[in-house]
Amino acid sequence: MTKSTIGFLGPRGTFTEEALRKIIDKDQKTKPLPSISEVINAVQKGEVDKGFVAIENSIEGSVNTTLDVLTFEADVLIEQEFVYAISHNLISRFDLTKDKLETVISHPQATAQCRGYLLKNFPSANIEAANATAEAAKIVSEERANAAAISTRLAAEIYGLKILDENIQDFKDNQTRFVMLGDKISKKTGRDKTSIVCFIKQDRPGSLLEILQAFAKNDVNLTKIQSRPTRKALGEYYFFIDLEGHIEDENISTIINGLRKKLREVKLLGSYPKVTNND
Amino acid sequence: MTKSTIGFLGPRGTFTEEALRKIIDKDQKTKPLPSISEVINAVQKGEVDKGFVAIENSIEGSVNTTLDVLTFEADVLIEQEFVYAISHNLISRFDLTKDKLETVISHPQATAQCRGYLLKNFPSANIEAANATAEAAKIVSEERANAAAISTRLAAEIYGLKILDENIQDFKDNQTRFVMLGDKISKKTGRDKTSIVCFIKQDRPGSLLEILQAFAKNDVNLTKIQSRPTRKALGEYYFFIDLEGHIEDENISTIINGLRKKLREVKLLGSYPKVTNND
Repeated sequence: MTKSTIGFLGPRGTFTEEALRKIIDKDQKTKPLPSISEVINAVQKGEVDKGFVAIENSIEGSVNTTLDVLTFEADVLIEQEFVYAISHNLISRFDLTKDKLETVISHPQATAQCRGYLLKNFPSANIEAANATAEAAKIVSEERANAAAISTRLAAEIYGLKILDENIQDFKDNQTRFVMLGDKISKKTGRDKTSIVCFIKQDRPGSLLEILQAFAKNDVNLTKIQSRPTRKALGEYYFFIDLEGHIEDENISTIINGLRKKLREVKLLGSYPKVTNND
Repeated sequence: MTKSTIGFLGPRGTFTEEALRKIIDKDQKTKPLPSISEVINAVQKGEVDKGFVAIENSIEGSVNTTLDVLTFEADVLIEQEFVYAISHNLISRFDLTKDKLETVISHPQATAQCRGYLLKNFPSANIEAANATAEAAKIVSEERANAAAISTRLAAEIYGLKILDENIQDFKDNQTRFVMLGDKISKKTGRDKTSIVCFIKQDRPGSLLEILQAFAKNDVNLTKIQSRPTRKALGEYYFFIDLEGHIEDENISTIINGLRKKLREVKLLGSYPKVTNND
Protein backbone atom coordinates (compact mmCIF):
# COMPACT_ATOMS: atom_id res chain seq x y z
CA MET A 1 0.00 0.00 0.00
CA THR A 2 1.47 3.37 -1.00
CA LYS A 3 1.24 6.53 1.12
CA SER A 4 -1.22 8.15 -1.28
CA THR A 5 -4.74 9.18 -0.21
CA ILE A 6 -7.55 6.63 0.06
CA GLY A 7 -11.14 7.84 -0.14
CA PHE A 8 -13.90 6.04 1.82
CA LEU A 9 -17.56 6.45 2.79
CA GLY A 10 -17.68 8.87 5.71
CA PRO A 11 -18.28 10.33 8.20
CA ARG A 12 -15.33 9.07 10.26
CA GLY A 13 -16.23 6.02 12.34
CA THR A 14 -18.20 4.08 9.71
CA PHE A 15 -17.87 0.32 9.22
CA THR A 16 -15.96 1.09 6.04
CA GLU A 17 -13.32 3.10 7.94
CA GLU A 18 -13.15 0.39 10.62
CA ALA A 19 -12.36 -2.20 7.90
CA LEU A 20 -9.95 0.14 6.08
CA ARG A 21 -7.89 0.75 9.24
CA LYS A 22 -7.17 -3.00 9.46
CA ILE A 23 -5.19 -2.95 6.21
CA ILE A 24 -3.39 0.41 6.18
CA ASP A 25 -0.43 1.88 8.04
CA LYS A 26 -1.11 4.39 10.81
CA ASP A 27 0.31 7.26 8.76
CA GLN A 28 -1.72 6.43 5.62
CA LYS A 29 -3.76 9.44 4.50
CA THR A 30 -7.49 8.77 4.21
CA LYS A 31 -10.37 11.02 3.21
CA PRO A 32 -14.01 10.58 4.21
CA LEU A 33 -16.44 11.38 1.37
CA PRO A 34 -20.21 11.84 1.63
CA SER A 35 -21.41 8.96 -0.60
CA ILE A 36 -20.20 5.78 -2.30
CA SER A 37 -20.77 7.49 -5.65
CA GLU A 38 -18.43 10.33 -4.65
CA VAL A 39 -15.74 7.86 -3.49
CA ILE A 40 -15.77 6.03 -6.84
CA ASN A 41 -15.93 9.22 -8.90
CA ALA A 42 -13.08 10.76 -6.88
CA VAL A 43 -10.89 7.80 -7.95
CA GLN A 44 -11.95 8.32 -11.57
CA LYS A 45 -11.08 12.03 -11.45
CA GLY A 46 -7.77 11.43 -9.62
CA GLU A 47 -8.90 13.45 -6.57
CA VAL A 48 -7.88 10.45 -4.45
CA ASP A 49 -5.44 7.71 -5.43
CA LYS A 50 -7.58 4.80 -4.31
CA GLY A 51 -11.14 4.29 -3.13
CA PHE A 52 -12.34 1.78 -0.52
CA VAL A 53 -16.00 0.71 -0.66
CA ALA A 54 -18.26 -2.15 0.47
CA ILE A 55 -19.55 -4.31 -2.37
CA GLU A 56 -21.42 -7.22 -0.74
CA ASN A 57 -22.78 -8.29 2.63
CA SER A 58 -23.71 -11.83 3.66
CA ILE A 59 -27.10 -10.71 5.02
CA GLU A 60 -28.11 -7.76 2.85
CA GLY A 61 -26.60 -8.96 -0.44
CA SER A 62 -24.89 -6.70 -2.94
CA VAL A 63 -24.32 -3.04 -2.20
CA ASN A 64 -26.39 -1.84 -5.13
CA THR A 65 -24.92 1.67 -5.29
CA THR A 66 -21.41 0.26 -5.64
CA LEU A 67 -22.41 -2.08 -8.49
CA ASP A 68 -24.38 0.63 -10.28
CA VAL A 69 -21.72 3.35 -10.05
CA LEU A 70 -18.96 0.92 -11.19
CA THR A 71 -21.22 -0.10 -14.07
CA PHE A 72 -22.73 3.17 -15.26
CA GLU A 73 -20.76 6.14 -13.95
CA ALA A 74 -17.06 5.39 -13.68
CA ASP A 75 -14.23 3.48 -15.34
CA VAL A 76 -12.15 2.32 -12.41
CA LEU A 77 -10.82 -1.13 -11.56
CA ILE A 78 -11.09 -3.39 -8.53
CA GLU A 79 -7.45 -3.95 -7.43
CA GLN A 80 -7.99 -5.95 -4.24
CA GLU A 81 -10.78 -7.48 -2.19
CA PHE A 82 -11.11 -7.91 1.59
CA VAL A 83 -13.68 -9.77 3.71
CA TYR A 84 -14.42 -8.73 7.29
CA ALA A 85 -16.97 -9.71 9.93
CA ILE A 86 -19.18 -6.78 10.84
CA SER A 87 -20.58 -6.42 14.33
CA HIS A 88 -23.03 -3.88 15.66
CA ASN A 89 -22.50 -2.39 19.13
CA LEU A 90 -24.80 -0.49 21.47
CA ILE A 91 -22.87 2.58 22.64
CA SER A 92 -23.72 5.57 24.85
CA ARG A 93 -22.28 8.33 27.05
CA PHE A 94 -23.15 6.62 30.35
CA ASP A 95 -23.58 3.07 31.66
CA LEU A 96 -27.31 3.13 31.00
CA THR A 97 -29.41 0.53 32.80
CA LYS A 98 -32.35 -0.93 30.88
CA ASP A 99 -34.93 1.37 32.48
CA LYS A 100 -32.84 4.48 31.68
CA LEU A 101 -32.38 3.81 27.98
CA GLU A 102 -35.17 5.77 26.30
CA THR A 103 -33.98 6.09 22.71
CA VAL A 104 -31.89 4.05 20.27
CA ILE A 105 -30.44 5.94 17.28
CA SER A 106 -28.96 4.46 14.11
CA HIS A 107 -29.19 4.12 10.34
CA PRO A 108 -32.50 2.33 9.57
CA GLN A 109 -30.63 -0.62 8.04
CA ALA A 110 -28.56 -1.16 11.20
CA THR A 111 -31.69 -0.84 13.33
CA ALA A 112 -33.39 -3.45 11.13
CA GLN A 113 -30.43 -5.84 11.53
CA CYS A 114 -30.78 -5.59 15.33
CA ARG A 115 -34.59 -5.66 15.43
CA GLY A 116 -34.89 -8.96 17.38
CA TYR A 117 -32.32 -7.82 19.95
CA LEU A 118 -34.06 -4.47 20.47
CA LEU A 119 -37.55 -6.04 20.81
CA LYS A 120 -36.20 -8.47 23.41
CA ASN A 121 -34.06 -6.07 25.44
CA PHE A 122 -35.56 -2.59 24.93
CA PRO A 123 -39.16 -3.17 23.83
CA SER A 124 -40.29 0.33 24.75
CA ALA A 125 -37.31 2.33 23.41
CA ASN A 126 -37.97 4.97 20.74
CA ILE A 127 -36.14 4.18 17.52
CA GLU A 128 -34.66 7.32 15.94
CA ALA A 129 -33.04 7.43 12.52
CA ALA A 130 -29.62 8.78 11.52
CA ASN A 131 -28.03 9.08 8.07
CA ALA A 132 -25.10 6.84 9.10
CA THR A 133 -24.18 4.69 12.11
CA ALA A 134 -21.30 7.10 12.81
CA GLU A 135 -23.71 10.08 12.73
CA ALA A 136 -25.79 8.27 15.36
CA ALA A 137 -22.70 8.05 17.61
CA LYS A 138 -22.04 11.78 17.09
CA ILE A 139 -25.64 12.69 18.03
CA VAL A 140 -25.46 10.56 21.19
CA SER A 141 -22.12 12.11 22.18
CA GLU A 142 -23.37 15.68 21.81
CA GLU A 143 -26.71 15.91 23.46
CA ARG A 144 -28.41 12.74 24.49
CA ALA A 145 -27.87 11.38 28.00
CA ASN A 146 -30.59 8.70 27.81
CA ALA A 147 -29.92 7.61 24.25
CA ALA A 148 -27.66 4.92 22.78
CA ALA A 149 -26.41 4.48 19.22
CA ILE A 150 -26.02 1.29 17.23
CA SER A 151 -22.58 1.85 15.76
CA THR A 152 -18.96 0.71 15.40
CA ARG A 153 -16.26 0.27 18.08
CA LEU A 154 -14.30 2.86 16.11
CA ALA A 155 -17.14 5.41 16.48
CA ALA A 156 -17.22 4.70 20.23
CA GLU A 157 -13.48 5.51 20.37
CA ILE A 158 -13.77 8.64 18.22
CA TYR A 159 -16.70 10.08 20.18
CA GLY A 160 -15.58 8.88 23.64
CA LEU A 161 -18.58 6.62 24.21
CA LYS A 162 -18.98 3.45 26.29
CA ILE A 163 -19.82 0.07 24.76
CA LEU A 164 -22.95 -1.20 26.55
CA ASP A 165 -23.26 -4.37 24.48
CA GLU A 166 -21.52 -5.83 21.44
CA ASN A 167 -22.33 -8.16 18.54
CA ILE A 168 -26.03 -7.34 18.90
CA GLN A 169 -27.12 -8.03 15.29
CA ASP A 170 -29.72 -10.80 14.87
CA PHE A 171 -27.64 -12.79 12.37
CA LYS A 172 -24.29 -13.40 13.99
CA ASP A 173 -22.33 -14.41 10.89
CA ASN A 174 -22.45 -11.02 9.20
CA GLN A 175 -19.56 -10.66 6.76
CA THR A 176 -18.88 -7.83 4.33
CA ARG A 177 -16.72 -7.80 1.24
CA PHE A 178 -14.86 -4.53 0.55
CA VAL A 179 -12.88 -3.61 -2.56
CA MET A 180 -9.94 -1.26 -3.13
CA LEU A 181 -10.47 0.67 -6.34
CA GLY A 182 -7.81 2.18 -8.59
CA ASP A 183 -6.72 2.13 -12.22
CA LYS A 184 -4.68 -1.09 -12.41
CA ILE A 185 -5.20 -4.74 -13.27
CA SER A 186 -3.51 -6.53 -10.36
CA LYS A 187 -0.66 -8.96 -11.02
CA LYS A 188 -1.60 -12.56 -11.65
CA THR A 189 -1.08 -14.74 -8.55
CA GLY A 190 -2.60 -18.01 -9.79
CA ARG A 191 -5.50 -17.64 -7.34
CA ASP A 192 -7.39 -14.72 -8.85
CA LYS A 193 -10.86 -13.44 -9.51
CA THR A 194 -12.15 -11.34 -12.38
CA SER A 195 -15.25 -9.12 -12.23
CA ILE A 196 -17.20 -8.26 -15.37
CA VAL A 197 -20.52 -6.64 -16.26
CA CYS A 198 -22.57 -8.06 -19.14
CA PHE A 199 -25.19 -6.00 -20.95
CA ILE A 200 -27.41 -8.25 -23.04
CA LYS A 201 -29.16 -7.23 -26.23
CA GLN A 202 -32.83 -6.44 -25.76
CA ASP A 203 -35.32 -9.24 -26.42
CA ARG A 204 -32.64 -11.90 -26.01
CA PRO A 205 -33.93 -13.71 -22.90
CA GLY A 206 -31.57 -16.66 -23.54
CA SER A 207 -28.44 -14.50 -23.21
CA LEU A 208 -27.77 -15.31 -19.56
CA LEU A 209 -27.91 -18.99 -20.48
CA GLU A 210 -25.37 -18.36 -23.27
CA ILE A 211 -23.06 -16.57 -20.83
CA LEU A 212 -23.23 -19.38 -18.27
CA GLN A 213 -22.70 -22.03 -20.94
CA ALA A 214 -19.60 -20.25 -22.29
CA PHE A 215 -17.94 -20.39 -18.85
CA ALA A 216 -19.21 -23.90 -17.96
CA LYS A 217 -17.90 -25.38 -21.23
CA ASN A 218 -14.42 -24.16 -20.29
CA ASP A 219 -14.69 -25.23 -16.62
CA VAL A 220 -14.51 -21.65 -15.36
CA ASN A 221 -16.24 -21.35 -11.99
CA LEU A 222 -18.51 -18.34 -11.40
CA THR A 223 -18.51 -17.18 -7.77
CA LYS A 224 -21.27 -14.59 -8.17
CA ILE A 225 -24.04 -13.68 -10.60
CA GLN A 226 -26.11 -10.64 -9.73
CA SER A 227 -28.84 -9.22 -11.91
CA ARG A 228 -29.50 -5.50 -11.50
CA PRO A 229 -32.06 -3.22 -13.14
CA THR A 230 -30.75 -1.19 -16.09
CA ARG A 231 -32.67 1.81 -14.61
CA LYS A 232 -34.59 1.99 -17.88
CA ALA A 233 -37.54 -0.35 -17.40
CA LEU A 234 -38.75 -2.74 -14.72
CA GLY A 235 -37.65 -6.26 -15.65
CA GLU A 236 -34.66 -5.17 -17.79
CA TYR A 237 -31.39 -6.33 -16.23
CA TYR A 238 -27.65 -6.28 -16.56
CA PHE A 239 -25.49 -9.00 -15.04
CA PHE A 240 -22.61 -8.50 -12.65
CA ILE A 241 -20.39 -11.61 -12.67
CA ASP A 242 -17.38 -12.68 -10.59
CA LEU A 243 -15.40 -15.58 -11.97
CA GLU A 244 -12.32 -17.54 -10.91
CA GLY A 245 -9.27 -16.70 -13.03
CA HIS A 246 -7.30 -13.72 -14.32
CA ILE A 247 -8.02 -11.71 -17.46
CA GLU A 248 -4.48 -12.64 -18.61
CA ASP A 249 -5.37 -16.37 -18.49
CA GLU A 250 -5.82 -17.46 -22.09
CA ASN A 251 -9.12 -19.31 -21.51
CA ILE A 252 -10.65 -16.33 -19.66
CA SER A 253 -9.70 -13.75 -22.29
CA THR A 254 -10.93 -16.08 -25.07
CA ILE A 255 -14.35 -16.52 -23.41
CA ILE A 256 -14.73 -12.79 -22.72
CA ASN A 257 -13.75 -11.87 -26.29
CA GLY A 258 -16.30 -14.43 -27.53
CA LEU A 259 -19.01 -12.91 -25.34
CA ARG A 260 -18.14 -9.43 -26.62
CA LYS A 261 -19.25 -10.57 -30.09
CA LYS A 262 -22.58 -11.93 -28.85
CA LEU A 263 -23.58 -9.35 -26.21
CA ARG A 264 -24.20 -5.62 -26.36
CA GLU A 265 -21.23 -4.92 -24.07
CA VAL A 266 -18.89 -6.64 -21.64
CA LYS A 267 -17.18 -4.25 -19.21
CA LEU A 268 -14.10 -5.42 -17.31
CA LEU A 269 -14.07 -4.34 -13.65
CA GLY A 270 -10.73 -5.85 -12.74
CA SER A 271 -8.68 -8.96 -11.97
CA TYR A 272 -7.36 -9.30 -8.41
CA PRO A 273 -6.26 -11.89 -5.84
CA LYS A 274 -9.10 -13.93 -4.35
CA VAL A 275 -9.61 -13.92 -0.58
CA THR A 276 -12.20 -15.54 1.67
CA ASN A 277 -11.82 -13.98 5.11
CA ASN A 278 -9.26 -11.52 6.48
CA ASP A 279 -10.25 -11.70 10.16
CA MET B 1 -61.13 -7.84 -3.55
CA THR B 2 -63.01 -8.96 -0.42
CA LYS B 3 -63.78 -6.68 2.53
CA SER B 4 -61.30 -8.49 4.75
CA THR B 5 -58.30 -6.74 6.33
CA ILE B 6 -55.15 -6.05 4.30
CA GLY B 7 -51.86 -5.51 6.16
CA PHE B 8 -49.21 -3.14 4.74
CA LEU B 9 -45.93 -1.47 5.73
CA GLY B 10 -46.81 1.53 7.89
CA PRO B 11 -46.93 4.13 9.21
CA ARG B 12 -49.92 5.55 7.29
CA GLY B 13 -48.85 7.64 4.32
CA THR B 14 -46.10 5.32 2.96
CA PHE B 15 -45.62 4.63 -0.74
CA THR B 16 -47.05 1.18 -0.09
CA GLU B 17 -50.30 2.64 1.26
CA GLU B 18 -50.44 5.12 -1.63
CA ALA B 19 -50.22 2.20 -4.11
CA LEU B 20 -52.66 0.04 -2.12
CA ARG B 21 -55.32 2.78 -2.13
CA LYS B 22 -55.34 2.70 -5.93
CA ILE B 23 -56.69 -0.85 -6.00
CA ILE B 24 -59.07 -1.08 -3.03
CA ASP B 25 -62.54 0.26 -2.24
CA LYS B 26 -62.83 3.21 0.11
CA ASP B 27 -64.40 1.05 2.84
CA GLN B 28 -61.72 -1.67 2.62
CA LYS B 29 -60.13 -2.28 6.04
CA THR B 30 -56.34 -1.89 6.07
CA LYS B 31 -53.82 -2.25 8.87
CA PRO B 32 -50.39 -0.57 9.03
CA LEU B 33 -47.71 -2.88 10.47
CA PRO B 34 -44.18 -1.89 11.57
CA SER B 35 -42.09 -3.97 9.13
CA ILE B 36 -42.33 -6.00 5.93
CA SER B 37 -41.51 -9.10 7.96
CA GLU B 38 -44.50 -8.43 10.23
CA VAL B 39 -46.84 -7.91 7.25
CA ILE B 40 -45.85 -11.26 5.73
CA ASN B 41 -45.93 -13.13 9.04
CA ALA B 42 -49.37 -11.62 9.88
CA VAL B 43 -50.71 -13.21 6.67
CA GLN B 44 -49.12 -16.52 7.65
CA LYS B 45 -50.72 -16.43 11.13
CA GLY B 46 -54.12 -15.29 9.81
CA GLU B 47 -53.95 -12.00 11.74
CA VAL B 48 -54.74 -10.24 8.45
CA ASP B 49 -56.41 -11.78 5.39
CA LYS B 50 -53.98 -10.39 2.84
CA GLY B 51 -50.66 -8.58 2.90
CA PHE B 52 -49.48 -5.90 0.45
CA VAL B 53 -45.72 -5.40 0.06
CA ALA B 54 -43.20 -3.98 -2.42
CA ILE B 55 -41.04 -6.63 -4.08
CA GLU B 56 -38.98 -4.78 -6.74
CA ASN B 57 -38.06 -1.27 -7.81
CA SER B 58 -36.68 -0.22 -11.19
CA ILE B 59 -33.84 1.80 -9.58
CA GLU B 60 -33.06 -0.02 -6.35
CA GLY B 61 -33.71 -3.58 -7.53
CA SER B 62 -35.32 -6.28 -5.44
CA VAL B 63 -36.70 -5.50 -2.00
CA ASN B 64 -34.42 -7.93 -0.22
CA THR B 65 -36.46 -8.22 2.96
CA THR B 66 -39.53 -9.28 0.98
CA LEU B 67 -37.60 -11.98 -0.91
CA ASP B 68 -35.90 -13.26 2.24
CA VAL B 69 -39.02 -13.42 4.41
CA LEU B 70 -41.02 -15.16 1.64
CA THR B 71 -38.12 -17.60 1.25
CA PHE B 72 -37.07 -18.33 4.83
CA GLU B 73 -39.77 -17.30 7.29
CA ALA B 74 -43.27 -17.77 5.88
CA ASP B 75 -45.34 -20.02 3.62
CA VAL B 76 -47.65 -17.58 1.88
CA LEU B 77 -48.43 -17.15 -1.81
CA ILE B 78 -48.27 -14.22 -4.23
CA GLU B 79 -51.87 -13.87 -5.50
CA GLN B 80 -51.55 -10.71 -7.63
CA GLU B 81 -48.91 -8.23 -8.78
CA PHE B 82 -49.19 -4.48 -9.44
CA VAL B 83 -46.74 -1.99 -10.96
CA TYR B 84 -46.87 1.72 -10.09
CA ALA B 85 -44.70 4.74 -10.80
CA ILE B 86 -43.28 6.17 -7.60
CA SER B 87 -42.61 9.87 -7.25
CA HIS B 88 -40.96 11.77 -4.43
CA ASN B 89 -42.36 15.13 -3.32
CA LEU B 90 -40.93 17.94 -1.23
CA ILE B 91 -43.59 18.85 1.35
CA SER B 92 -43.75 21.30 4.27
CA ARG B 93 -46.06 23.29 6.53
CA PHE B 94 -45.50 26.61 4.78
CA ASP B 95 -44.66 27.84 1.28
CA LEU B 96 -40.95 27.91 2.04
CA THR B 97 -38.77 29.96 -0.25
CA LYS B 98 -35.31 28.59 -1.00
CA ASP B 99 -33.54 30.73 1.58
CA LYS B 100 -36.00 29.69 4.33
CA LEU B 101 -35.65 25.95 3.86
CA GLU B 102 -33.01 24.90 6.41
CA THR B 103 -33.58 21.17 6.77
CA VAL B 104 -34.75 18.29 4.58
CA ILE B 105 -35.97 15.18 6.41
CA SER B 106 -36.54 11.70 4.93
CA HIS B 107 -35.58 8.04 4.94
CA PRO B 108 -31.91 7.84 3.83
CA GLN B 109 -32.89 5.85 0.71
CA ALA B 110 -35.35 8.55 -0.43
CA THR B 111 -32.76 11.24 0.28
CA ALA B 112 -30.24 9.29 -1.81
CA GLN B 113 -32.71 9.03 -4.71
CA CYS B 114 -33.10 12.85 -4.69
CA ARG B 115 -29.43 13.65 -4.09
CA GLY B 116 -28.86 15.49 -7.40
CA TYR B 117 -32.02 17.56 -6.95
CA LEU B 118 -31.06 18.55 -3.40
CA LEU B 119 -27.47 19.47 -4.35
CA LYS B 120 -28.77 21.67 -7.15
CA ASN B 121 -31.67 23.36 -5.36
CA PHE B 122 -30.80 23.30 -1.65
CA PRO B 123 -27.02 22.87 -1.47
CA SER B 124 -26.75 24.15 2.09
CA ALA B 125 -29.75 22.35 3.63
CA ASN B 126 -29.14 19.96 6.53
CA ILE B 127 -30.19 16.41 5.68
CA GLU B 128 -31.93 14.71 8.62
CA ALA B 129 -32.89 11.05 8.70
CA ALA B 130 -36.27 9.47 9.50
CA ASN B 131 -37.24 5.80 9.76
CA ALA B 132 -39.84 6.15 6.97
CA THR B 133 -40.84 8.84 4.47
CA ALA B 134 -44.21 9.09 6.25
CA GLU B 135 -42.45 9.59 9.61
CA ALA B 136 -40.56 12.50 7.99
CA ALA B 137 -43.91 14.11 7.07
CA LYS B 138 -45.17 13.63 10.62
CA ILE B 139 -42.03 15.26 12.11
CA VAL B 140 -42.37 18.24 9.74
CA SER B 141 -46.08 18.65 10.58
CA GLU B 142 -45.48 18.67 14.33
CA GLU B 143 -42.62 20.96 15.05
CA ARG B 144 -40.58 22.12 12.14
CA ALA B 145 -41.44 25.42 10.48
CA ASN B 146 -38.27 25.65 8.34
CA ALA B 147 -38.07 21.98 7.43
CA ALA B 148 -39.45 19.99 4.49
CA ALA B 149 -39.93 16.25 4.10
CA ILE B 150 -39.34 14.08 1.05
CA SER B 151 -42.50 12.01 1.11
CA THR B 152 -45.72 10.94 -0.64
CA ARG B 153 -48.71 13.02 -1.76
CA LEU B 154 -50.76 10.83 0.58
CA ALA B 155 -48.57 11.83 3.56
CA ALA B 156 -49.02 15.50 2.59
CA GLU B 157 -52.81 14.95 2.70
CA ILE B 158 -52.74 13.03 5.98
CA TYR B 159 -50.55 15.57 7.78
CA GLY B 160 -52.03 18.70 6.14
CA LEU B 161 -48.79 19.72 4.41
CA LYS B 162 -48.17 21.72 1.22
CA ILE B 163 -46.44 20.25 -1.82
CA LEU B 164 -43.49 22.52 -2.63
CA ASP B 165 -42.23 20.42 -5.54
CA GLU B 166 -43.08 17.05 -7.05
CA ASN B 167 -41.34 14.26 -8.97
CA ILE B 168 -37.99 15.37 -7.52
CA GLN B 169 -36.17 11.99 -7.74
CA ASP B 170 -33.05 11.97 -9.96
CA PHE B 171 -34.25 9.04 -12.09
CA LYS B 172 -37.67 9.96 -13.40
CA ASP B 173 -38.81 6.50 -14.50
CA ASN B 174 -39.03 4.99 -11.05
CA GLN B 175 -41.46 2.07 -11.02
CA THR B 176 -42.20 -0.31 -8.18
CA ARG B 177 -43.76 -3.78 -8.31
CA PHE B 178 -46.02 -4.64 -5.38
CA VAL B 179 -47.56 -8.04 -4.57
CA MET B 180 -50.75 -9.05 -2.75
CA LEU B 181 -50.02 -12.02 -0.50
CA GLY B 182 -52.50 -14.67 0.66
CA ASP B 183 -52.88 -18.43 0.69
CA LYS B 184 -54.22 -19.15 -2.80
CA ILE B 185 -52.85 -20.07 -6.22
CA SER B 186 -54.66 -17.60 -8.51
CA LYS B 187 -56.84 -18.92 -11.34
CA LYS B 188 -55.13 -19.51 -14.66
CA THR B 189 -55.76 -16.66 -17.12
CA GLY B 190 -53.46 -17.72 -19.98
CA ARG B 191 -51.15 -14.74 -19.29
CA ASP B 192 -49.65 -15.75 -15.97
CA LYS B 193 -46.41 -15.68 -14.04
CA THR B 194 -45.04 -18.16 -11.52
CA SER B 195 -42.51 -17.34 -8.79
CA ILE B 196 -40.22 -20.00 -7.37
CA VAL B 197 -37.17 -20.17 -5.11
CA CYS B 198 -34.41 -22.67 -5.91
CA PHE B 199 -31.94 -23.87 -3.29
CA ILE B 200 -29.01 -25.59 -4.92
CA LYS B 201 -26.92 -28.33 -3.36
CA GLN B 202 -23.59 -27.13 -1.98
CA ASP B 203 -20.56 -27.45 -4.23
CA ARG B 204 -22.70 -27.67 -7.35
CA PRO B 205 -21.69 -24.47 -9.15
CA GLY B 206 -23.31 -25.67 -12.38
CA SER B 207 -26.80 -25.83 -10.84
CA LEU B 208 -27.96 -22.42 -12.06
CA LEU B 209 -26.95 -23.46 -15.56
CA GLU B 210 -29.02 -26.66 -15.17
CA ILE B 211 -32.03 -24.63 -14.02
CA LEU B 212 -31.78 -22.19 -16.94
CA GLN B 213 -31.31 -25.03 -19.43
CA ALA B 214 -34.41 -26.87 -18.15
CA PHE B 215 -36.58 -23.81 -18.85
CA ALA B 216 -34.86 -22.84 -22.13
CA LYS B 217 -35.25 -26.37 -23.57
CA ASN B 218 -39.03 -26.05 -23.07
CA ASP B 219 -39.22 -22.45 -24.36
CA VAL B 220 -40.28 -21.08 -20.98
CA ASN B 221 -39.26 -17.43 -20.65
CA LEU B 222 -37.75 -16.28 -17.33
CA THR B 223 -38.64 -12.67 -16.46
CA LYS B 224 -36.39 -12.42 -13.42
CA ILE B 225 -33.46 -14.24 -11.83
CA GLN B 226 -32.19 -12.86 -8.57
CA SER B 227 -29.45 -14.44 -6.50
CA ARG B 228 -29.58 -13.74 -2.77
CA PRO B 229 -27.24 -14.77 0.05
CA THR B 230 -28.36 -17.82 2.05
CA ARG B 231 -27.37 -15.88 5.20
CA LYS B 232 -24.95 -18.70 6.00
CA ALA B 233 -21.74 -17.77 4.19
CA LEU B 234 -20.62 -15.02 1.84
CA GLY B 235 -20.84 -16.32 -1.71
CA GLU B 236 -23.55 -18.94 -1.01
CA TYR B 237 -26.74 -18.05 -2.86
CA TYR B 238 -30.31 -19.10 -3.46
CA PHE B 239 -32.15 -18.14 -6.65
CA PHE B 240 -35.46 -16.30 -6.84
CA ILE B 241 -36.99 -16.88 -10.29
CA ASP B 242 -40.07 -15.45 -12.04
CA LEU B 243 -41.19 -17.33 -15.15
CA GLU B 244 -43.97 -16.95 -17.70
CA GLY B 245 -46.69 -19.56 -17.25
CA HIS B 246 -48.93 -21.09 -14.57
CA ILE B 247 -48.04 -23.95 -12.22
CA GLU B 248 -51.09 -25.78 -13.65
CA ASP B 249 -49.56 -25.66 -17.17
CA GLU B 250 -48.27 -29.14 -17.86
CA ASN B 251 -44.84 -28.03 -19.14
CA ILE B 252 -44.25 -25.81 -16.11
CA SER B 253 -45.19 -28.45 -13.54
CA THR B 254 -43.08 -31.05 -15.39
CA ILE B 255 -39.98 -28.78 -15.34
CA ILE B 256 -40.45 -27.89 -11.67
CA ASN B 257 -40.92 -31.53 -10.66
CA GLY B 258 -37.78 -32.39 -12.62
CA LEU B 259 -35.82 -29.64 -10.82
CA ARG B 260 -37.08 -30.91 -7.45
CA LYS B 261 -35.20 -34.17 -8.10
CA LYS B 262 -31.94 -32.37 -8.94
CA LEU B 263 -31.92 -29.48 -6.44
CA ARG B 264 -32.01 -29.34 -2.67
CA GLU B 265 -35.43 -27.63 -2.68
CA VAL B 266 -37.78 -25.76 -5.00
CA LYS B 267 -40.32 -23.59 -3.13
CA LEU B 268 -43.42 -22.37 -4.98
CA LEU B 269 -44.29 -18.73 -4.20
CA GLY B 270 -47.43 -18.54 -6.35
CA SER B 271 -48.93 -18.30 -9.84
CA TYR B 272 -50.76 -15.08 -10.70
CA PRO B 273 -51.80 -12.89 -13.64
CA LYS B 274 -48.93 -10.96 -15.25
CA VAL B 275 -49.12 -7.16 -15.42
CA THR B 276 -46.72 -4.53 -16.71
CA ASN B 277 -47.99 -1.15 -15.52
CA ASN B 278 -51.16 -0.19 -13.65
CA ASP B 279 -50.83 3.58 -13.90
